[in-house]
Amino acid sequence: MPDKLVRLRRFEPPDQARRPVMIAIAGDSAAGKTTLTRGIAEALGPDRATAICADDYHRYDRQERAGLPFTVLNPECNYIGIMEQHLQLLALGRPVLKPVYDHGEGRLTRPVLVEPREFVIVEGLLPLHTKLARACFDIAVYLDPPEEIRREWKLRRDCKERGYSEAQVLAELERREPESAAYVRPQRQRADLTIRFAPAAGHGDAPDTPLSAEILLRPTILHPDLSHVLTDDDRRTVHLKLIRDSDGRPVDALHVHGYAPREDSHIVEKAIWKQLSIDPGTAPPDSLGEYAPGKRSEPLAIAQLLLLWHLLEARA
Amino acid sequence: MPDKLVRLRRFEPPDQARRPVMIAIAGDSAAGKTTLTRGIAEALGPDRATAICADDYHRYDRQERAGLPFTVLNPECNYIGIMEQHLQLLALGRPVLKPVYDHGEGRLTRPVLVEPREFVIVEGLLPLHTKLARACFDIAVYLDPPEEIRREWKLRRDCKERGYSEAQVLAELERREPESAAYVRPQRQRADLTIRFAPAAGHGDAPDTPLSAEILLRPTILHPDLSHVLTDDDRRTVHLKLIRDSDGRPVDALHVHGYAPREDSHIVEKAIWKQLSIDPGTAPPDSLGEYAPGKRSEPLAIAQLLLLWHLLEARA
Repeated sequence: MPDKLVRLRRFEPPDQARRPVMIAIAGDSAAGKTTLTRGIAEALGPDRATAICADDYHRYDRQERAGLPFTVLNPECNYIGIMEQHLQLLALGRPVLKPVYDHGEGRLTRPVLVEPREFVIVEGLLPLHTKLARACFDIAVYLDPPEEIRREWKLRRDCKERGYSEAQVLAELERREPESAAYVRPQRQRADLTIRFAPAAGHGDAPDTPLSAEILLRPTILHPDLSHVLTDDDRRTVHLKLIRDSDGRPVDALHVHGYAPREDSHIVEKAIWKQLSIDPGTAPPDSLGEYAPGKRSEPLAIAQLLLLWHLLEARA
Repeated sequence: MPDKLVRLRRFEPPDQARRPVMIAIAGDSAAGKTTLTRGIAEALGPDRATAICADDYHRYDRQERAGLPFTVLNPECNYIGIMEQHLQLLALGRPVLKPVYDHGEGRLTRPVLVEPREFVIVEGLLPLHTKLARACFDIAVYLDPPEEIRREWKLRRDCKERGYSEAQVLAELERREPESAAYVRPQRQRADLTIRFAPAAGHGDAPDTPLSAEILLRPTILHPDLSHVLTDDDRRTVHLKLIRDSDGRPVDALHVHGYAPREDSHIVEKAIWKQLSIDPGTAPPDSLGEYAPGKRSEPLAIAQLLLLWHLLEARA
């Protein structure tokens, strides 16, 4: 009965369609995870995307941590096993009662029900720390700004939004450094894409120029093919270069300069968008690229569009 | 290769041994769940038993409930799906991050990590409400005191420990009645054992006599055989009667009168204990039967010992 066999082999469990596409946005504190995530979540809309923060799985509140020999970057300081469990449940399309860490108050509060939509975006310090957690994701991203940029961002945010003094933030950065090296940064090599926003080297840009992006596209997943629209000519504002990563592995490096004109970035955006195997119905969403109210960055827009492409393509 | 087949059939997954025995103690508010549970948990010791309360899965806090058309007895007022999920995880030996409802303050607070030990005791209003929840339990118990006794208990406890006035408790009892009938009491017929503490009818006992117990042993699970030590002579302080339950189903009714002397209850306790298929190493624990500091009830001791027998036997 070959017909029957074929039918059996093609059988797809009925809840398969309800399984969401999962993306991890990992990176150190103030690496830009929320900014990157926000544009993607907005482009998909709240009906299609659920965004959660893996840092809600902190085991201790701020007061308890004061007496402990490790920082929140340490897996010991987090319910990693529960995070894995919740990621698995979400990946299966199941709801979870997610813990909540209030960054403002530094307290653990009442948990919330999270029901996964079509897309689940998980940002945090350690979403790619364990094998079981990584196995839950369709796409793994690591945000990798230069340390001096990240320190600036962290100082600004923690003083303004979380009520710390500058001296406190600097001391905390120093205290966290060994654990950042031990637990956060090793996630970089587990990522399918790493994204680095930084000033373009040796250009002496005007002070208001957005940061450039270097996006590494690892062949661990299939990326849109950009080699037919981009050359490796690094005098172009957007170019694609085959390089070796710091660990020697081959990788495609997409460079988008902060001063890239909209025309140049549009070429890349269109090339990405038309490689969707479904008809997205619309042009790439305009909302991408906003890094502050009213401020737009072409490098950020392209990074977000690439991730959006991956999300939609994994769903296709 | 018959040998190999036999071996395959006998194969037990390595984590099977780590799966805890689960018991549900269901019943309405102030039905005596905590008193019953405490003695069993103490007899097993904290290293072997994990006790949790299913009412921690309340969806709304006290303030939010004030504006809602239902009470905590309504499944709508609880994360029943998450309760099912957590019961399944615990039954598989996995930890959960359990929500916490603070009865004193009426607030939902920071969740706690629960790691199942050998035995998991789940008491609450609705642990037997759904099929999936029931499927997690090895033993299902329903506590079924007469309403007037339960009202007394609830008045005493809620005024003393939860800061309500007498008028508030009485109003709440009335408000809850339809939902108790709709959701809590139907669990009785799903239980393997129902336990009813009440004054012995027509005995005019001294005011300090402990309540008698009627324990229904449904043939849904295997109970210790007491028919060889007890008769159905209801002039005896402890007797066993084959009856029909209110719904017509056959059931064994074990009666233990509140004034039963220790000698009589000892006979039953020994008969239960020696039917353990493992060697428990010790005599039945002395700690059973305490219903208030320094106050002992033989009916409570026998009820607890029966449950302890079931727990140990399910583990054997």
